[in-house]
Amino acid sequence: MPALIKDGPVWTLDLGGDENRFSPDFLTEVDTALDEIAASAEPAVLLTTGSGKFFSNGLDLDWIMAHAGELPGYVDRIHAMFAKVLTLPVPTVAAINGHAFGGGAMLAIAHDFRVMRDDRGFFCFPEVDILIPFTAGMNALIVAKTTPQAQVASMTTGRRWGGAEAAEAGLVDEATSLDRLREAAEARVAPLAGKDRRTLGRIKQVLYAGAVEALLEPQPSDLTF
Amino acid sequence: MPALIKDGPVWTLDLGGDENRFSPDFLTEVDTALDEIAASAEPAVLLTTGSGKFFSNGLDLDWIMAHAGELPGYVDRIHAMFAKVLTLPVPTVAAINGHAFGGGAMLAIAHDFRVMRDDRGFFCFPEVDILIPFTAGMNALIVAKTTPQAQVASMTTGRRWGGAEAAEAGLVDEATSLDRLREAAEARVAPLAGKDRRTLGRIKQVLYAGAVEALLEPQPSDLTF
Amino acid sequence: MPALIKDGPVWTLDLGGDENRFSPDFLTEVDTALDEIAASAEPAVLLTTGSGKFFSNGLDLDWIMAHAGELPGYVDRIHAMFAKVLTLPVPTVAAINGHAFGGGAMLAIAHDFRVMRDDRGFFCFPEVDILIPFTAGMNALIVAKTTPQAQVASMTTGRRWGGAEAAEAGLVDEATSLDRLREAAEARVAPLAGKDRRTLGRIKQVLYAGAVEALLEPQPSDLTF
Repeated sequence: MPALIKDGPVWTLDLGGDENRFSPDFLTEVDTALDEIAASAEPAVLLTTGSGKFFSNGLDLDWIMAHAGELPGYVDRIHAMFAKVLTLPVPTVAAINGHAFGGGAMLAIAHDFRVMRDDRGFFCFPEVDILIPFTAGMNALIVAKTTPQAQVASMTTGRRWGGAEAAEAGLVDEATSLDRLREAAEARVAPLAGKDRRTLGRIKQVLYAGAVEALLEPQPSDLTF
Repeated sequence: MPALIKDGPVWTLDLGGDENRFSPDFLTEVDTALDEIAASAEPAVLLTTGSGKFFSNGLDLDWIMAHAGELPGYVDRIHAMFAKVLTLPVPTVAAINGHAFGGGAMLAIAHDFRVMRDDRGFFCFPEVDILIPFTAGMNALIVAKTTPQAQVASMTTGRRWGGAEAAEAGLVDEATSLDRLREAAEARVAPLAGKDRRTLGRIKQVLYAGAVEALLEPQPSDLTF
Repeated sequence: MPALIKDGPVWTLDLGGDENRFSPDFLTEVDTALDEIAASAEPAVLLTTGSGKFFSNGLDLDWIMAHAGELPGYVDRIHAMFAKVLTLPVPTVAAINGHAFGGGAMLAIAHDFRVMRDDRGFFCFPEVDILIPFTAGMNALIVAKTTPQAQVASMTTGRRWGGAEAAEAGLVDEATSLDRLREAAEARVAPLAGKDRRTLGRIKQVLYAGAVEALLEPQPSDLTF
């Protein structure tokens, strides 16, 4: 389960040491953590990472199989998490410590910056291979953060990107060794910890207005994958 | 005239050995070829190329001069071809064997990937020089596939891009020798031949929804160039 | 005060030797200069630059403080200037001779191309630090000209970009020495001086239709910063 650890201005959201899939409880924990950061008053930044082989494998397909009727509301909750990260009124960075697949890759994309380890672990949109097309909201999120070339190369292929390749394509901002991962991620945002939240939040809301609108559009009640 | 040649999973759409301009018959042949690929069931990719000095020179200006009253419907057909390539439910690549001008460059842009020979031939939007502004649909197609810097540098200048320059600007994904052109183009898509068509088609439809909407908007009946 | 100097096809808009902030008189002078170029008939390009340490520091915050009730109309005028530069029917280039901050950076962004000196001076969006979120129009302008990575790195951080860094991020097209600044800027547009104005204007209007629409939307009468 995700845990939020505060160390001075740096709030670390540790997604866990497992596959860190988006179970309903996982979503509740993340939502609570994001609200806690947003409601705090001191200078703060969010650094999201995992503690094992995975950053996150995204959607909890086992849970979906067992709760087919609840799919629309489940996807709405995931979209809402992406929108909340995307417009969080503090600087945010994902320290991608391992595999970031599907929704896990999207969660990383929702952060302002991404730093990825360069020796192991893949950034991957497997949607085309697992027969789950991107929703309009997920699509809008990825488009808001990447170049057209990176979109087609990642979203239509299922390609697994190592850190260096992901950095070259702009899917992440930087690739570095696991040893330096946290340090490099912190360096991206720690100097920004004191930014005025009302202004920063508003800047992100205007910049990502289209993506947020698509993410907050409720899914149809007959949604299936 | 375009010809469709199937060799295992690779369907080659040979645009011809001439200037390969978009005559009405050319458009019919391409449309039929695209439908044939889309209706097939086995793993497939589309590789579009030409067999002479030209990939394609785009709009058939001679035909337009002789059929001025038919311009709106003619442009609608070209737009429809671009939209069909853009969202074809199989992986697509343009192997740019020579000049790709105007609509010919747009046809290449509509493919998922582009590989261009690096010794001869230009990628060029001559619209600003031939006094034919981009339609809203053409504009949306190019914007969906290129960076803002590449847009202004190519669409407002009439600049003729050699292969290496076009690759650097992201107008194409790769430049290589004519000898290796087909091989390099195939390498981009052949490994993707087995992708589920329904999923891939849906991914492209969502990713390019805005461009497709602009392309399928009928031209006004009083359209002139 | 801005001055317009014609030398053959190159019209130089010198923003002045001061901070070149957007006072109402400054806006009137620039607007008149842009109209004069647009109304001319000979081949022409616009080269905008400053003559001192500043390209432009943007909004005239002193004037705003003294004329709070006139803020909406003032912002409308700035937006209109950006839209006019963005769609000027001749090729345009900003020769960034020194600091380009806030609205000054946006004015540079509104040009087709940007060349920046590489030894001194910063390109910077300080909005997040001076508590002035980007308007929807300003946001749309910047988004129309930059990559998603450059947007978050510049708009949410207040980072001051030197010439070389700004070029690497695509915020400007090229960085060069002050000695070569004008020459390099001219080289980008002088060969394009003869482009047909009706066609070039239309191409820019279609390419930047979304940004222009956002820029020309009147500000609410209760606008405050």
